[in-house]
Amino acid sequence: MSNSDNKEYVLGMIGLGTMGRNLLLNMADHGFPVAGFDLDPQKAAQLEEEGAGNKVKGFSTIKDFVASLKSPRTIMMLVPAGKIVDSVIEELLPLIDQGDIIIDSGNSHFTDTNRRVEDLESKGFHFFGMGISGGEEGARRGPSMMPGGDKVAYKVVEPILEAISAKVNGEPCVTYIGPGASGHFVKMVHNGIEYGLMQLIAETYEVLKKGLKLDNEAIHQVFKEWNEGKLQSYLLEITRDIFAFKDKQTGELLLDLIKDQAKAKGTGKWTSQISMDLMLPITVIDTAVAMRDLSRYKELRIQAAAIYSKDESNGLQSEDQQAFIAKLEEAFYFSMIITYAQGMHLLMQASEEYAYGLDLAKIAKIWRGGCIIRAHFLDAIYKAFQKQPTLPHLLLDSQIESFIQESLPYIRSVVSKAAEQGIAMPAYAASLSYFDTLRSETMPDNLIQAQRDFFGAHTYELIGSEGTYHTNWEEK
Amino acid sequence: MSNSDNKEYVLGMIGLGTMGRNLLLNMADHGFPVAGFDLDPQKAAQLEEEGAGNKVKGFSTIKDFVASLKSPRTIMMLVPAGKIVDSVIEELLPLIDQGDIIIDSGNSHFTDTNRRVEDLESKGFHFFGMGISGGEEGARRGPSMMPGGDKVAYKVVEPILEAISAKVNGEPCVTYIGPGASGHFVKMVHNGIEYGLMQLIAETYEVLKKGLKLDNEAIHQVFKEWNEGKLQSYLLEITRDIFAFKDKQTGELLLDLIKDQAKAKGTGKWTSQISMDLMLPITVIDTAVAMRDLSRYKELRIQAAAIYSKDESNGLQSEDQQAFIAKLEEAFYFSMIITYAQGMHLLMQASEEYAYGLDLAKIAKIWRGGCIIRAHFLDAIYKAFQKQPTLPHLLLDSQIESFIQESLPYIRSVVSKAAEQGIAMPAYAASLSYFDTLRSETMPDNLIQAQRDFFGAHTYELIGSEGTYHTNWEEK
Repeated sequence: MSNSDNKEYVLGMIGLGTMGRNLLLNMADHGFPVAGFDLDPQKAAQLEEEGAGNKVKGFSTIKDFVASLKSPRTIMMLVPAGKIVDSVIEELLPLIDQGDIIIDSGNSHFTDTNRRVEDLESKGFHFFGMGISGGEEGARRGPSMMPGGDKVAYKVVEPILEAISAKVNGEPCVTYIGPGASGHFVKMVHNGIEYGLMQLIAETYEVLKKGLKLDNEAIHQVFKEWNEGKLQSYLLEITRDIFAFKDKQTGELLLDLIKDQAKAKGTGKWTSQISMDLMLPITVIDTAVAMRDLSRYKELRIQAAAIYSKDESNGLQSEDQQAFIAKLEEAFYFSMIITYAQGMHLLMQASEEYAYGLDLAKIAKIWRGGCIIRAHFLDAIYKAFQKQPTLPHLLLDSQIESFIQESLPYIRSVVSKAAEQGIAMPAYAASLSYFDTLRSETMPDNLIQAQRDFFGAHTYELIGSEGTYHTNWEEK
Repeated sequence: MSNSDNKEYVLGMIGLGTMGRNLLLNMADHGFPVAGFDLDPQKAAQLEEEGAGNKVKGFSTIKDFVASLKSPRTIMMLVPAGKIVDSVIEELLPLIDQGDIIIDSGNSHFTDTNRRVEDLESKGFHFFGMGISGGEEGARRGPSMMPGGDKVAYKVVEPILEAISAKVNGEPCVTYIGPGASGHFVKMVHNGIEYGLMQLIAETYEVLKKGLKLDNEAIHQVFKEWNEGKLQSYLLEITRDIFAFKDKQTGELLLDLIKDQAKAKGTGKWTSQISMDLMLPITVIDTAVAMRDLSRYKELRIQAAAIYSKDESNGLQSEDQQAFIAKLEEAFYFSMIITYAQGMHLLMQASEEYAYGLDLAKIAKIWRGGCIIRAHFLDAIYKAFQKQPTLPHLLLDSQIESFIQESLPYIRSVVSKAAEQGIAMPAYAASLSYFDTLRSETMPDNLIQAQRDFFGAHTYELIGSEGTYHTNWEEK
């Protein structure tokens, strides 16, 4: 570092892992002079190396890093969620000035972000939480970004974010989400939807492999074709590629060599847990979380398989393969719609509960590019909420209705066959049973209320009447 | 109050709602002199009135109440979970002596209990959390109780608890559960199972009513007959009675007049949320929680029904009713077993994670009587864990296996038909898809790991190999 570097940089990044580094390089490509800090001098050096030709500076001393930033300083963090975020903030505070801007771009839990917003604003700093989706490649070439919190701070960085974001029809995949922790909340729900979609794709693989007994090449073809139609999405696209990716050493499909035990960073779990606090059902996402967890019990599954799968018969083998795949494509479409619909419904409820004032059309719009859940279908979501910003549920939109009506016979057939033949398709099944419940004007929950009043005197409400009632049900 | 009352009472209860009052009256019936405290003097008076003839004293001044108790004092609380418990403890501490025993018998969240155990033990008091199940009637005639925490304290109250508990084959439905908050944890899981079973019964009602188009009297008969066979349980018993309970004024079935929107006190939600933290799937309970939540969206369901249920056809009407009901009985048995199995599995995992040292056989044993989830089937659970205390999953027991194998064709048929015909049976469906996943030696989660590594460089593991790997999937 030389003194001539002082105060030259418009944005500084703390944490130069792949995501942080790539975001900075992306900014530098768009003409923004940027600085990065990492305790590891090698990472700082790597940043400068990869950014050669642009105004990019790496630091491994936080004081020098902070001193190099233009005032008001804009400092972005991309460090692991949790305590590390707090300790970075703590280290930073004595070095920066009131009015400086701190942006947490990691996957922080939104309740942590709430706490930090409150704490830092009381001390005179601007703080906002921003979700970023797109992975390494997205960070480098154009991510989708969900910034929430201090609007004044957002306006300062808006030109940078708009420049580096993914574009769809020339429009940036970033928008001001709302106050408080809304950016991190929306990113969390994005990830929840991602869990749901990944589970649906995994179950599709399951039924193609174990039901229809397709080989990998044939499965590759299925995903390839689906990705060229209305199901087009980033996740199907990479799935297609995974089914064509050979291990260099063995020549085998790399996928076949990978353990069938899923890990998770927790954002899907958070989505489910919070949805339960908000009393807003997102059953496909819950199922996805539970099934990743069940995948970890490999030893137990081996024992259960030894008992319950020994004389497995599979009636799907006698199906007309092409006809079944065509049905499955429609069934996937149905379940995919339900997954997005549950996620959007959760956003609505959260917006009300936390006064985020979310604009669902804008959120769908910035999810159309750059992020992991980008898909052709997001355009239909965008249009639905653009047409009716207060639409109570995605399934009430007339265009979405036509998609659902068209695919409905096929999801019924697929879920029914899977149940009969013992193919595990829990998320497909959950999407259908959610739908069948949602379209029930009356649910059997009057019985649940009667039971609760019977055994626990929890009272019940009467149709067409105010107030609560209790009955002594054992009185003759 | 007179001075002659001083130090006469072996146990004092704070909170004289129905549960607290009934527990005290139960103790008094068994010859224990007991005192109760409630801020409301009417409740204190009501206690004395109902306890007339026994040594029962009501107080509405906490000082006098505390002064009336034998040393070391045993003070039980039955107040709403949350802050009220803390404020009662705070009020109590200056009045009592080290070595005194405080028992929280409400539905406190186990993490709150952990905090209180730590806090109070550091101050020299004995504290334990105890779950009680059985509702008002159970409290009065014999509940099932799940005390956890300080074993010394437990030994002091053991004679009282054993005397007042429900009995099965002459054995008390109470046992020392384990250290810390284990009592409240086990009670929470009990309630989670309760949510699952109630949802299964509600879905049974749904398919009988909307699928087979049975009238209430016929549904009453179904539950009556089921309750006389292997499905015998408290919840089916009260369901049977609910289907025979007429509203005095109108002569209609009271059930038909009750709103179909379920409420919840939160213990089911807690169970699901914690199972996600423990990464232990309990999908039937998750579904039950989500469906209670969905029932609250009445307006939305009316709108969705107007679109999606207008030309509803129902192929179940053409089924042979008796044959279908017989199938349904087996399907219910299957789903009921899965519900208990998921709950027991969660207990095992929690026992390991929190070092509770739970004895699952003993827990099943004390659930056989007094509590809401008591059922004939609990004897089979008891026997399974008695035979093999470290059984990794209920479904690996050979007796349970035979039940599952027998009922399996019927759950397949019922779930399959419901999916086809549009009858919402989400918990039945979730139990089957959980089973089909559990019995899968291989799951499609290698694909999820490949996707996570593709878009997020989250790494994967290889079969038969240590360590984690990352691949640049876009490299040709």
